[in-house]
Amino acid sequence: MSAVPMSAVESRLAELGLTVPEVVPPVAAYVPAVRTGNYVYTSGQLPMVAGAMPATGKVGGAVTPEQGKELAQACALNAIAAVKALIGDLDKVVRVVKVVGFVASVPEFTGQPQVVNGASELLGKAFGDAGIHARSAVGVVALPLDAPVEVEIVVEVAD
Amino acid sequence: MSAVPMSAVESRLAELGLTVPEVVPPVAAYVPAVRTGNYVYTSGQLPMVAGAMPATGKVGGAVTPEQGKELAQACALNAIAAVKALIGDLDKVVRVVKVVGFVASVPEFTGQPQVVNGASELLGKAFGDAGIHARSAVGVVALPLDAPVEVEIVVEVAD
Amino acid sequence: MSAVPMSAVESRLAELGLTVPEVVPPVAAYVPAVRTGNYVYTSGQLPMVAGAMPATGKVGGAVTPEQGKELAQACALNAIAAVKALIGDLDKVVRVVKVVGFVASVPEFTGQPQVVNGASELLGKAFGDAGIHARSAVGVVALPLDAPVEVEIVVEVAD
Repeated sequence: MSAVPMSAVESRLAELGLTVPEVVPPVAAYVPAVRTGNYVYTSGQLPMVAGAMPATGKVGGAVTPEQGKELAQACALNAIAAVKALIGDLDKVVRVVKVVGFVASVPEFTGQPQVVNGASELLGKAFGDAGIHARSAVGVVALPLDAPVEVEIVVEVAD
Repeated sequence: MSAVPMSAVESRLAELGLTVPEVVPPVAAYVPAVRTGNYVYTSGQLPMVAGAMPATGKVGGAVTPEQGKELAQACALNAIAAVKALIGDLDKVVRVVKVVGFVASVPEFTGQPQVVNGASELLGKAFGDAGIHARSAVGVVALPLDAPVEVEIVVEVAD
Repeated sequence: MSAVPMSAVESRLAELGLTVPEVVPPVAAYVPAVRTGNYVYTSGQLPMVAGAMPATGKVGGAVTPEQGKELAQACALNAIAAVKALIGDLDKVVRVVKVVGFVASVPEFTGQPQVVNGASELLGKAFGDAGIHARSAVGVVALPLDAPVEVEIVVEVAD
């Protein structure tokens, strides 16, 4: 009669006041994530929150770095949702291997690492030691739907 | 005496009026694709058609989104060629795992997903269910040789 | 009583007058490289030399393509350092699988391949046949700390 127990990962997110959302439907002809062997590759995740983008534009322009960091966290939460949709139990994640953060930037903005920390820090809090990853952060000229940030991740999962 | 039978993948491409081209020689010090274990990683593919780029410039500027989509299809076809050159029989592809589409964009253009659909849809038609992939699409400020689109893929292949 | 013997990779670098540097500490909440199975994924490496960036700005603007190529070599050397810090002996690298080179570019600059060759050529010289890789080179609008180039690599290592 009891509900499905929450994964430890989701418990840690709940302590942060966060819930793993429904998977964001792809904007186009692909899927949110693919599993191959013991790896899950997510698609680039936009910072959709409850079906809407809280802000649009370029970081360093209409979007502040602080807003960008919050949006990067939303991207990471959507990436976690995409992984969960494939593997069910997030405690099966044994390692977040790689994160790429694309930050829509004005040419003068060079604080991409601080923005993408919004994603990295959430992954660290959610997965603990398993959340420590390699990462690239770059400034791109534009993103789909005028999103300020897009984040993709690769995770290793247990058999 | 008979010719080598065409792979099912190439038969599906032929129905679309498409032929897997010769591999596009790299612009620089690398190779078109590398196999490691059961995976093939391609280099970023430019939209060369018969040795020439049909259009150059930024999408949203000199290049329309519709042209960009056609060019993304050309990139994907070149990626398929790069995979074929390594594994021979394209029917050995068990999954297209990941696609990254880089769209040279003016800052105001945010329709990268529709452009990269040119690649995603071709992969779906060529590989069927095995062609359904995770994907990132981003807008970059410039690409090699002033290409409007560059596409890289990772595929899983049978032993 | 003898010192630890130098790896063949480091001997080849020494012939070029290069030493594998100390690992560059991440700018943010992540690690320089992660090993998963037989693969090492590095974080995006900036062209730090002895703790400082020799030049900043966009290639095609304040930074010439020739400078960009030298900086790309510095990125690759830092990537090699990140791999070494994880696996110890660089001769365990059996293949450089993939390189992505992000070149901070003015919109008119389309010579990203020549810039990223600075990384590709170094990997070829350091690892020989094992250094021949798949590669993407793209022009981005801005990079962390105003770096002109950022390079990430994936390598396969022996058990």
